[in-house]
Amino acid sequence: MQQNNPTACLLIIGNEILSGRTQDKNLNYLAKKLSEHGVRLQEVRVIPDIEATIIATIRQCMTGFDYVFTTGGIGPTHDDITADCVAKAVGVGIGEHPAAAKILRDHYGDQITEARLRMARIPEGAGLIDNPISLAPGFHIKNIFVMAGVPSIMQAMLDNVLPMLRKGEAIQSVAVSAILPESRMAAGLAAIQKDHADIDIGSYPLMSEGKFATTIILRGTNKASINAAAEKVRAMMRGLGQEPIERDLAA
Amino acid sequence: MQQNNPTACLLIIGNEILSGRTQDKNLNYLAKKLSEHGVRLQEVRVIPDIEATIIATIRQCMTGFDYVFTTGGIGPTHDDITADCVAKAVGVGIGEHPAAAKILRDHYGDQITEARLRMARIPEGAGLIDNPISLAPGFHIKNIFVMAGVPSIMQAMLDNVLPMLRKGEAIQSVAVSAILPESRMAAGLAAIQKDHADIDIGSYPLMSEGKFATTIILRGTNKASINAAAEKVRAMMRGLGQEPIERDLAA
Repeated sequence: MQQNNPTACLLIIGNEILSGRTQDKNLNYLAKKLSEHGVRLQEVRVIPDIEATIIATIRQCMTGFDYVFTTGGIGPTHDDITADCVAKAVGVGIGEHPAAAKILRDHYGDQITEARLRMARIPEGAGLIDNPISLAPGFHIKNIFVMAGVPSIMQAMLDNVLPMLRKGEAIQSVAVSAILPESRMAAGLAAIQKDHADIDIGSYPLMSEGKFATTIILRGTNKASINAAAEKVRAMMRGLGQEPIERDLAA
Repeated sequence: MQQNNPTACLLIIGNEILSGRTQDKNLNYLAKKLSEHGVRLQEVRVIPDIEATIIATIRQCMTGFDYVFTTGGIGPTHDDITADCVAKAVGVGIGEHPAAAKILRDHYGDQITEARLRMARIPEGAGLIDNPISLAPGFHIKNIFVMAGVPSIMQAMLDNVLPMLRKGEAIQSVAVSAILPESRMAAGLAAIQKDHADIDIGSYPLMSEGKFATTIILRGTNKASINAAAEKVRAMMRGLGQEPIERDLAA
């Protein structure tokens, strides 16, 4: 589905996610925002703070997707190596970006330090991404958008990134649920999916008030096809003796 | 660090994570459990329910890591294609596994259906992973462990998977925090990391009661090195006028 929508990959960079110390909150937020914008998030990779891994992953993903987003690793400490890795992956130099350095110097005044100025190290040719929260900017170069890992900062940066992206047809979704185990709808759903290959139909089981229940999500850019398929799903549920519930039971 | 510990990759399979409909809860749980077991989670990929993508990703990851874990896509509906993809990736056939089918037949009795028996489709040569919650088993073949996506079921399956894994030296961590912005510790931390290359030192900024604070995480298998480095971190914090706080401020 959504063959004409731009595609995206998110790289979550940070040992703290892989060790379990930190629960990532950026994936879910970015996924929803990109959907609204008509950009299709096709892959996410979580990788450690290891230079060779970051460079190889960026190189692989920047050719496979229209956009690559990164979160994490752009602070002032030794484990913040994303900017240097992006420069190497793209094959450009890196140095103090005058506008980024000015933002930091203006803010910190005589509290400016070498470590803080490290946050002004930006690959050559990159544009800045404004950071209204803690000022140290993100940046974009080629199809790569480098953002902070702290969720509030990432979210503020993303507001500034979205207008730079090609807008795809909005990806819409409809949720229809029933107090039925998903296995009872499996054959019917497969047939409906076959008739509506232009949308994605997902089946998500859950327990609702102690009973087996299922939410069906119909998702795509063709609203007419979504609506027609959803009507078939409702009819199937009624045929199995259950009234459709017009919401995602997991939400 | 931890060069002798087994390595692992997690594949989270499911459109619902990439669309933002579902917030993944398996990564963080698995990461913590693997750490305790001495297995180093080195990468996570979230991929959609697309056969070619799943097969290619499994093939790539099964050669790059000691263990590959998957979550999601093993239910009874058309979008549950993980088992078939694993069989194709490994190059074996797939069919109804007698023991898995017996579990389902015993449980469902005359309520057994073709859709439910689909959950007994297991690649040839795979071993089963017990599912004490909803019975339909996971499986393991070569270095791949296929588990459910529903967190409660994944967690129960993981209890049965961990004893099958080579146990590495336990990965330990110490957290030391201070009410200091991380930039003030950046130079000191870089020097400590350089002297303790056998451990990972991470610096994580946060706001604590309206003040800039930082938690330093020291992580690895060499407890003596962790303790020595932590002592240097504490001395650095005191040198900057702040008493170290012996916990992770984000926890």
